[in-house]
Amino acid sequence: MSFTPMPLEHSLEFRVSYYETDGQARVHHSQYLNFFERGRVELMRFLGHSYRNLEATGLMLVVAEMNVRYLGAAQFDDILKLTTSVTEARGATIRHAYRLVRSDDDSLIVQADSRIACVDRDGRVRRLPAYLRVV
Amino acid sequence: MSFTPMPLEHSLEFRVSYYETDGQARVHHSQYLNFFERGRVELMRFLGHSYRNLEATGLMLVVAEMNVRYLGAAQFDDILKLTTSVTEARGATIRHAYRLVRSDDDSLIVQADSRIACVDRDGRVRRLPAYLRVV
Amino acid sequence: MSFTPMPLEHSLEFRVSYYETDGQARVHHSQYLNFFERGRVELMRFLGHSYRNLEATGLMLVVAEMNVRYLGAAQFDDILKLTTSVTEARGATIRHAYRLVRSDDDSLIVQADSRIACVDRDGRVRRLPAYLRVV
Amino acid sequence: MSFTPMPLEHSLEFRVSYYETDGQARVHHSQYLNFFERGRVELMRFLGHSYRNLEATGLMLVVAEMNVRYLGAAQFDDILKLTTSVTEARGATIRHAYRLVRSDDDSLIVQADSRIACVDRDGRVRRLPAYLRVV
Repeated sequence: MSFTPMPLEHSLEFRVSYYETDGQARVHHSQYLNFFERGRVELMRFLGHSYRNLEATGLMLVVAEMNVRYLGAAQFDDILKLTTSVTEARGATIRHAYRLVRSDDDSLIVQADSRIACVDRDGRVRRLPAYLRVV
Repeated sequence: MSFTPMPLEHSLEFRVSYYETDGQARVHHSQYLNFFERGRVELMRFLGHSYRNLEATGLMLVVAEMNVRYLGAAQFDDILKLTTSVTEARGATIRHAYRLVRSDDDSLIVQADSRIACVDRDGRVRRLPAYLRVV
Repeated sequence: MSFTPMPLEHSLEFRVSYYETDGQARVHHSQYLNFFERGRVELMRFLGHSYRNLEATGLMLVVAEMNVRYLGAAQFDDILKLTTSVTEARGATIRHAYRLVRSDDDSLIVQADSRIACVDRDGRVRRLPAYLRVV
Repeated sequence: MSFTPMPLEHSLEFRVSYYETDGQARVHHSQYLNFFERGRVELMRFLGHSYRNLEATGLMLVVAEMNVRYLGAAQFDDILKLTTSVTEARGATIRHAYRLVRSDDDSLIVQADSRIACVDRDGRVRRLPAYLRVV
């Protein structure tokens, strides 16, 4: 029997705001981490879950590792397309990959991957809820 | 009998970081509110109190009103001097005034005033602790 | 002869991101200024103009005054609706008013007004381009 | 003949501001990149150079790669100590390593490394000025 898993991937388009740029007239490199965060939240929503509800149960997802390669520069008013995918989700860990392109010419701006840990309010590592685990 | 009150005023010097500038190569106008916040926290510390401890008692100070006049532009690496003063502190309200100058030429960059409200975790307005009130 | 001017007003809906909240689990008060900036840019686009193009001509719009009243608290994942309107635009000055509500219950979060000045790259005040002036 | 190179390392102490925390009451993970940026600028100053002056010559240093491991959580009002070191500086590339600890208990919060590229205003890769190269 063949089996095609639901793709754990979501794309998001948005414009660069002025306040996200820095004195080099480019998006400041720290801002991309904010974009990735939005990507994770929207991917979770797309899969039918709510990060707000997760926190209401006393669990939090915290970023444990973030690796970013900056390959291009985004500017104010550019429309960007961020594709966020889950590459692993088991135990207390979710790994994501990110690919951010400029929408008009599909040029690659940033690539990244991250490792997220599930913890409780006291910071103790906790198993992911079943609905977030990928077998 | 004469009486000279302790001046409820504190000055803080700091450098502008690159990430605080925007595509106009100036400090982004929203960043000044972050500087003011630091000014309030350090003024409170200077007066012998700790905002962290205040929140630990279940109270929070929230910004209820903020009025800012931008008179000059600060740039990356400028050294700025922020003077924060309490102009009123009674009931559930603290009013501050802010004056931000560039240190080298004393030119005025921003002037502002704000009204802060004391609330509890449920957002209900609460009387300021006695040590924060100014008769 | 009656005359009904085009309403110089635009509304924008967006979700609160996690990084826009602070340790009080509310949107940090400085973030609203970033939302207003987005509101001004999108209002200009709605009226057929581009702020990016304006800057390409050597002019910049800088915030000269900002007055904000915080009436409620927005939280992570809330959907907010920002209405930005031009209340005056002549000489070198544009005045805007802002009204931000939570979309689901229409409760008022923030009200604000601002004064924007048109300057050139050297910071000299310049007349607004005709297409931005409102008679 | 023995040779002891000047240590290309600088430490910086600073307090966590309220606006740098997020709804988890911890420093938001993107903020650490801003701290690292400050670390690089102050390291350069400590070595006798000015990043502002470098940009005035038409060169810019842009972040090409950033790898961060988050090992602990910093909170509002914590005093942090950031040690920034140059691990390589030749051609058009500078590599830095970062180590951020909480000052009071020396507990490790974040470790990171980055690769910075020297470019001109048009984004073309350019050799580092001699004074920034380490043989």
